[in-house]
Amino acid sequence: MTSPQVERIDSASNATLKRLRLLARDSTAYREQGELWLDGDHLIRAALARGQAPNLVLVSEEAMHQRPEWRELALSAPRVRVVPAKLFESVSGLPSATQIGATLAVPSARGVLPDCATVVLDRLQDAGNVGTILRSAAALGVKQVLALKGSAALGSPKVMRAAMGAHFGLHWVEGVSEAELEQLTVPLVATSSYAREALHRVDLPWPCAWVLGHEGQGVSDILLARCHTTVRIPQPGGEESLNVAAAAAICLYESLRRTLT
Amino acid sequence: MTSPQVERIDSASNATLKRLRLLARDSTAYREQGELWLDGDHLIRAALARGQAPNLVLVSEEAMHQRPEWRELALSAPRVRVVPAKLFESVSGLPSATQIGATLAVPSARGVLPDCATVVLDRLQDAGNVGTILRSAAALGVKQVLALKGSAALGSPKVMRAAMGAHFGLHWVEGVSEAELEQLTVPLVATSSYAREALHRVDLPWPCAWVLGHEGQGVSDILLARCHTTVRIPQPGGEESLNVAAAAAICLYESLRRTLT
Repeated sequence: MTSPQVERIDSASNATLKRLRLLARDSTAYREQGELWLDGDHLIRAALARGQAPNLVLVSEEAMHQRPEWRELALSAPRVRVVPAKLFESVSGLPSATQIGATLAVPSARGVLPDCATVVLDRLQDAGNVGTILRSAAALGVKQVLALKGSAALGSPKVMRAAMGAHFGLHWVEGVSEAELEQLTVPLVATSSYAREALHRVDLPWPCAWVLGHEGQGVSDILLARCHTTVRIPQPGGEESLNVAAAAAICLYESLRRTLT
Repeated sequence: MTSPQVERIDSASNATLKRLRLLARDSTAYREQGELWLDGDHLIRAALARGQAPNLVLVSEEAMHQRPEWRELALSAPRVRVVPAKLFESVSGLPSATQIGATLAVPSARGVLPDCATVVLDRLQDAGNVGTILRSAAALGVKQVLALKGSAALGSPKVMRAAMGAHFGLHWVEGVSEAELEQLTVPLVATSSYAREALHRVDLPWPCAWVLGHEGQGVSDILLARCHTTVRIPQPGGEESLNVAAAAAICLYESLRRTLT
């Protein structure tokens, strides 16, 4: 291992900081820059645990001097940039500044895997929901997440934070067209409040592709028509509905449970 | 029904608007003012559907003139305040201004119901998580939510929005002490990653009180020790963990499923 190139930055207008600031605050800058922003040591460690090493670490000088475990983490990257805490905050933009962040190459372009357990996001809008769904998917045995055009950006800093490292264990693809979904050989399954069959009673295929729909509109009619199975989640509470990330967790758990018993 | 008292407000410094602005933006102002802020027609209708009528409606003049169904909704309140859209936004503070909001009396002080299906929140911090959990609880057949001291404020505008009306169908109590939990005659059940028993295999008591813990620390050791049952959610994904609201949805669904089959 070659020793890292460590540089100190003191100017807020430094070109690297400007680039990182955009990466950390703009939801789609990663697409142009080709790098994801990992805010905090948890995300950096989660990437490393999956064999994905950061390109560059940005760390506050306070953390470098006072937190040996973060110093070690920082020095595992080929390039380290050390800044005063104030400058770190100016990049991160989070109310509770994490004091360490990193850039990681966006996975190279990749296609749809046809036959593994999958989640399809049909125009989901909320970054928190999307990240939570990625996190549930990774934990509950899903291998692939496909985001249809019109969904929140999977690599945005907000989604990265909410997903807590799930990206690094998933095959995730964005901007997928409905035509590309036809490459899937696993059956599509969706929830719909109009479905007759209740989730706990229906035969569920496995592996399958769970389709999760837009927060307000649900899964589009076109996609619903292509589903092998549609189910409703039993809700004795009646008129209330579930948050889409809560519904996703329930559906993925139910699929997993069937494989375990 | 007496006809509503309708007034137009044009000044941002009007005393009513100042009060509503605080109510809509501060997470605990409802405790001092004794009223909850319902942002948007969905929440107002959800309250009305449960027989809970607003004290006052604030509505933009555009909505009053162009949306007859909102006009009708507004005029169902005893007091209606009509403002230019800009002033409504100055109260609501939401990026997409809803143009109608209302105040509703905070439920009067009430104690712990001993023997119904319950969710206990052990110092949950995130308003979005708390609101999503209330929403799942109401949909999946839970009657009561108890928030221990140190949890996010249940009546805050953010929690109200994320819960999508769940408050109006639940018995919710905040600032509950651990001593007060002893009034529960239903057994406590919690998830713990150290538990031996997997959720899908364990005998689950019903009704029970599902205890959900702090986002970072989980359920406190003191509370865990008082639990009748602790379970782990099966996670073939390994090291990944679930968001607490996703875990809550899974646990509540599993409890419900057992009562249905």
